[in-house]
Amino acid sequence: MLGSVAALLTMFGFVPQILKIYRTRSVADISIVMLLQFFSGVFLWLLYGLHIQNNIIIAANAISLVTLITAIGLYVKYRNNK
Amino acid sequence: MLGSVAALLTMFGFVPQILKIYRTRSVADISIVMLLQFFSGVFLWLLYGLHIQNNIIIAANAISLVTLITAIGLYVKYRNNK
Repeated sequence: MLGSVAALLTMFGFVPQILKIYRTRSVADISIVMLLQFFSGVFLWLLYGLHIQNNIIIAANAISLVTLITAIGLYVKYRNNK
Repeated sequence: MLGSVAALLTMFGFVPQILKIYRTRSVADISIVMLLQFFSGVFLWLLYGLHIQNNIIIAANAISLVTLITAIGLYVKYRNNK
């Protein structure tokens, strides 16, 4: 239960940031290194989950990966906006 | 090994963002809801780690929590900067 709530909060952790970027179309203060580092880390977590066949790790990180791809796509789209 | 690299990348994931805030003193594009949601989630992960007595979960989330407290502190400090 504790673990489930924790997992839900962190796996959707980037959703508020994505909504803010949609609204403001501005990404000047966001670190692309942070996004790429989380992308790499979450991708490796996903591989690790597949390796040890743990469905919770697979699901949580697959969802995070989708939010990170979305955030990185928006960053690229709006990176030249002032 | 795969899991260790994954854990290192994600547990220090907010460090590049913290360094960027230090450099620019600007947080206008950062979602405070994202930071607070990760803070709550990582705090619950820490409690979960203590509950199931898993040292890896405890250590990873304790470190993340320190980076999140730093990021939230910097957000509060610079939130009125243009």
